[in-house]
Amino acid sequence: MTEPRSTNPPRRVMGIDPGLAIMGYGIVDERGSGGVLVTSGVVRTSSKLPRAERLARLHDAVRALIDEYRPHEVAVEQQFFKDNVKSAMAVGEARAAAMIAAAQAGCPVYEFAPREVKEAVTGWGNAPKTQVQQMVLVHLGLTRLDGPLDVTDAIGVALARLAAAGLEVAMARQ
Amino acid sequence: MTEPRSTNPPRRVMGIDPGLAIMGYGIVDERGSGGVLVTSGVVRTSSKLPRAERLARLHDAVRALIDEYRPHEVAVEQQFFKDNVKSAMAVGEARAAAMIAAAQAGCPVYEFAPREVKEAVTGWGNAPKTQVQQMVLVHLGLTRLDGPLDVTDAIGVALARLAAAGLEVAMARQ
Repeated sequence: MTEPRSTNPPRRVMGIDPGLAIMGYGIVDERGSGGVLVTSGVVRTSSKLPRAERLARLHDAVRALIDEYRPHEVAVEQQFFKDNVKSAMAVGEARAAAMIAAAQAGCPVYEFAPREVKEAVTGWGNAPKTQVQQMVLVHLGLTRLDGPLDVTDAIGVALARLAAAGLEVAMARQ
Repeated sequence: MTEPRSTNPPRRVMGIDPGLAIMGYGIVDERGSGGVLVTSGVVRTSSKLPRAERLARLHDAVRALIDEYRPHEVAVEQQFFKDNVKSAMAVGEARAAAMIAAAQAGCPVYEFAPREVKEAVTGWGNAPKTQVQQMVLVHLGLTRLDGPLDVTDAIGVALARLAAAGLEVAMARQ
C-alpha cells in the first residue's frame, strides 16, 4: 500500500459536531492517512437568547470560520435520537445552521453517522468514546487536545470525510 | 368588547409552516380581530438537490420575502413528531432555515404549537383541519384560497401571532 499522493494545496475539511448550546468544530488538512489540525474549538450560544437568535449566531460563526480558513468541504455529524424528539429537533436545527452557512459559502457538505465516524477513525463502528478520542490524537500526531469532547467529535467527522475522500481518489485511479 | 385600535402602519406578521420539500408562508396585516392577506404561497425544494443546498434555498427564499414585504414579526409552527424522528429532524432543519433568515433580518420570531394555532383560529385546540381552513378564510374575509394546505397552515400561524399580540396589547392597557 502506498500513501495517496498529496494534492497541492492539501484537501482541507471542516468537521462539525452540531449542537444548539455548544457546537464543536475542527479544521483538518489531509496528510497521508491522517491529517494536520489547522484549528479547532467550540461555538457556544446562551440559552437566554431567543432560539432564532442562537441559530443565527451559529450560522454566522460557521460562515466566519469558513471565510477565514477556506475549507474545501464541510463534514457534519448526522445523529438520530431515537428517544428524545426535542433534543433531536434542537440538534437538527443547529445542524441546519451549519449546513446553510456551508452551502452559501460554496462548500459541499457531507454527512456522517456516528457509527461511520467511529469506523473511519478506529476501524470499528462500535468503538467506545475513549478509543475514538485516542485515535483522533493518533491521526493528528498529537499527544493531547484541549477543550470539550465536542471538539474531538468534530475532528473525528473531518477525519471520516478525509478517509472517504481518500477512498474515492483510490477508486477513481483503478 | 371594543376592537383593539389599529396601529399605523398595521402590525404585519409572516406565518410559516416549515418543511424541507414544501414550506408554506402567508403574510397578514392586522385588522380588528382578523387580518388582511398580503401575500401567500409555498417554497419548494427538489429532493434531487443536496440537503444543505435545499436548506440554503429555504433560508434565501424567506429572507427575500422578508426584504420584499417587511413583516414586523415572523411566526413559525413548532411541531413535535413523536413517531418519526427522521421527519422531525427534516422539519426542524427547515424551521431553522426560516428562523435564521428572520433573525438576521431583525424580525422577532414566535413559535406556536399546532394546538395553539387551532385554539387561536377556531377557539378549540382539537379542531379538525377542515374547520381550521374554514376559519382562516373567515378571519381573512375570503371565500376561497388557492394553493396547498401548507399555505392555509402558514396563515393560521400568522393569525395565531396576531391574536397573541392583540392579547398582549389588551393586557398592557389594563
